[in-house]
Amino acid sequence: MQNFDYQTPTRLIFGKGVVDEKLSEVMNMFGKKVLLTYGGGSIKKMGLYDKVKELLKDKDIYELSGIQPNPKYDPSVLDGVKICKENDIDVILAVGGGSVLDCSKAIATGAKYEGDPWDLISYKAFATNSIPIVDIITLAATGSEYDAGGVISRTDTNDKIGYVDLHNFPRVSFLDPTYTFSVSKKQTAAGCADAMNHIMEQYFTGDSTLLNDGFMEAGLKSLMINAKKCIENPKDYTARAEMMLCCTYGCNQIYALGSSYSGWPCHGMEHALSAYYDITHGEGLAIITPRWMKHILSEKTVERFVKYGVNVFGIDAGQDKYDIANQAIDATYKFFETIGIPMHLKDVGIDESRIDEMAHHVAENEGLDKAWVPLSEKDIADIFRASL
Amino acid sequence: MQNFDYQTPTRLIFGKGVVDEKLSEVMNMFGKKVLLTYGGGSIKKMGLYDKVKELLKDKDIYELSGIQPNPKYDPSVLDGVKICKENDIDVILAVGGGSVLDCSKAIATGAKYEGDPWDLISYKAFATNSIPIVDIITLAATGSEYDAGGVISRTDTNDKIGYVDLHNFPRVSFLDPTYTFSVSKKQTAAGCADAMNHIMEQYFTGDSTLLNDGFMEAGLKSLMINAKKCIENPKDYTARAEMMLCCTYGCNQIYALGSSYSGWPCHGMEHALSAYYDITHGEGLAIITPRWMKHILSEKTVERFVKYGVNVFGIDAGQDKYDIANQAIDATYKFFETIGIPMHLKDVGIDESRIDEMAHHVAENEGLDKAWVPLSEKDIADIFRASL
Repeated sequence: MQNFDYQTPTRLIFGKGVVDEKLSEVMNMFGKKVLLTYGGGSIKKMGLYDKVKELLKDKDIYELSGIQPNPKYDPSVLDGVKICKENDIDVILAVGGGSVLDCSKAIATGAKYEGDPWDLISYKAFATNSIPIVDIITLAATGSEYDAGGVISRTDTNDKIGYVDLHNFPRVSFLDPTYTFSVSKKQTAAGCADAMNHIMEQYFTGDSTLLNDGFMEAGLKSLMINAKKCIENPKDYTARAEMMLCCTYGCNQIYALGSSYSGWPCHGMEHALSAYYDITHGEGLAIITPRWMKHILSEKTVERFVKYGVNVFGIDAGQDKYDIANQAIDATYKFFETIGIPMHLKDVGIDESRIDEMAHHVAENEGLDKAWVPLSEKDIADIFRASL
Repeated sequence: MQNFDYQTPTRLIFGKGVVDEKLSEVMNMFGKKVLLTYGGGSIKKMGLYDKVKELLKDKDIYELSGIQPNPKYDPSVLDGVKICKENDIDVILAVGGGSVLDCSKAIATGAKYEGDPWDLISYKAFATNSIPIVDIITLAATGSEYDAGGVISRTDTNDKIGYVDLHNFPRVSFLDPTYTFSVSKKQTAAGCADAMNHIMEQYFTGDSTLLNDGFMEAGLKSLMINAKKCIENPKDYTARAEMMLCCTYGCNQIYALGSSYSGWPCHGMEHALSAYYDITHGEGLAIITPRWMKHILSEKTVERFVKYGVNVFGIDAGQDKYDIANQAIDATYKFFETIGIPMHLKDVGIDESRIDEMAHHVAENEGLDKAWVPLSEKDIADIFRASL
C-alpha cells in the first residue's frame, strides 16, 4: 500500500430539492457579487436558470454563458477572468456539467493571478489565491464537483490540458439528480463511459487493496446497471441518483487511496482526440478503452484483467486466464456498444490522417511513459489505429 | 436514495514515515502552545513519545496522560479543559487510539465553552468554537480520526454518550500503520470488531445502493482477512495498512452516503455494557452483534441477510433464504470466535444482575426505537440475555 496525503474540503449537498432548500443560505456565505457561468440553453429549458436568478435576487449577478463541451481557453476562460477582474466578483456559481465547472475553475484562479492564466493551466506558475466556487451539477460524468482538477482546451495549439490546483476544490457542490432527467441518451452514455474510465484507469494498476477493488468494482457494476436504466427511463430517480454519486467520486482519489499511481492512459490519449476533433469526451474514451486493454494485456497484467472479468462481469473463474481477460475486454466493448456509443473513430469523424501527429502530441505531453504499462509514441499510434 | 449534506474537512496523511516527514510542518500551522494527550505507556514504549517531543522541540508542550479506554469525563476531559483554559493552548495533539482522540475532542470544544463541558456532550448547549486537533493514531479501530464524533463515559451516572460536533473534525490525522505493529492480539481483534460493526450497522438498513453495498462488503471482507493476518503476523505492513484504512472510513458516512439511517443498535446497546462494566468496547460489540442479528431476522430483513451472506461470506445463493441468513449470522459469530474474542457476556464479567437496569438505560438514551428494526426495552433485555 502506498503513502498518501488526502483532503477534500468540498461540501456535497445531494438530493431532490436541495437547491431550493439551501442555495440562498450557502451563497450568503460568500458575498454579493456573483458570476453565474453556464453553457447553452439547457438550464433555461429546464427552468433552473430562472430558479437560480429568483433564489439569488438579492445578489448582483454577472453572467458568462456559452461555455462549450471541451471548454475553451479563448474565449470562455479569458472572458470569465475579465468579468471577474473588472467587477471584483466574490463567488462563481457554475451551473451545468463538468465543462462549465472546469472552465469556472480556470477562471477562479486566473482572476486572482496577474499574468496570463495559461501559465497556471500549464504549470508555468502556481496560484496563491482563487475566487470561491459553488456549483449545481446537471450532468453525471466528470466528477469535477468533487475534485480540484479541470481540463481546458486551446484551439490555436491543439492543447487539451488536464491540471490540478488545490485552490480549485468547489466550496459547495449541489447535486440534484432530477436535473439530470433531461440529459439525452447520448450524453448519459458518454457520462457513464467517462465515469467508468475514471474508475478503470485507477483500477488497472499493480498494487491495489481488497477495499479499493471492491469499491471500484461496485462503482463499475453500478454505473453499468444504472446507466442502462437511465437510458431506458430518463426519469428513474434512483438510477439517476446512484449514477450521479458514482460519477462524483470519479477523480477524487477516494476510489483508490493507497493504490499505486496508474497514469491516466485513456484520458491522456483521448485529450488529443477531442482537442484535434472536438468529439464527445466520453465517446472518445469508450472507443479507445477496449483497444488499450488489448494492447496492454500481457503476463504482467493478465491477473488484473481476470479479477476485473470475474468480479465486474461475473465471468466464470474456472477458465484459462487469457480467455477470461479477453472475455472481459470484449464485455467492456459490448457494454459501451449496448448503450449506444459509436465504437470506431471513423464513426465520430476521425480518420488516419492525423494519427501520427496526435500520437506525437500525446507522447510529448501526457507522461504516459510513467503509466502502469508505459506507452511509447508507437504504442499510442497503434492504439489509435486499432480504434479506427 | 436519501438526501445528504456531507463534508469532511480532515486531511489524512497516511503511510510509513509520515510523522517524521510532516508533523513539524503541520504543527507549525497551528501555533506554539501544544497540549499533548495520550493514554498509558505504550507510546513511550514504542518510542513515539520521544519522537514527537523531538519533532516539536520548538513548541511549548503541556501534557495530559492517563486517558483510559472508554475515556472518562472526570478526570480526563475536565483536566484537559483546565490545562487548555489556564495556558491558552493553541492546538491539541492526540497520540493514541480512538479513546485518546475522543477525549481530546471533548476537551477541544469544552475549553472554548464557558459552562460545564458536559452540556456540549449531552446536547444541552452547542459549541461555537474549538481548539484545533491533530492526531497520530496508534490503533486501527474507531475511525475517530476521520469523523466529528466522540464517546465519553461518566462513571457517576453510568452514562456513555456518543455525540457529534462538527467543530471536532481533526484538522490533520497522521496514520502510520507501523505504529500499530505493537497492538496486542486482543486489541487487534477488538478493533476489527468495532470497525466491522461500524459497517454492519450502516449495512443493515432498508435502502442502500449497489455502490454502498459493494464498498461496505469489501470493507467487511478486507477487515476479516486482514485482521487475521495482523494477528498471525503483527508486523505485516500491508495487512495493518489496509485494516487501518477500513477502520478510518468507519463512522465518516462515506461507506453509506445516501443510504437510509439505520440507527446504531449494537453501539447503543454496548455503550451500556462498557459504561456499567468498563469492558473492551469491541468485545462487547462482537458479543451482542450475532444475537442482535438473530433477534431482528424476519420477513422484513431476511433479504438483506441473504445479500450479506452471499456477498460477504460467499454462502451458496441457491438455498432457502432463512438458511442463508442463519448461516451468515453463524459465520459472523464464528469469525469473531476465530480471532479470539470471548463470545459470552459472562466471559467478560457480566452476569444477569444488572441487565434490566442496563436495558432501561439504553431504551431511555439511545433512540433505538428509531432504528431500522426498532428495539424496545424488552427487545434490548432479550438481546442482552441471549448474549449471556
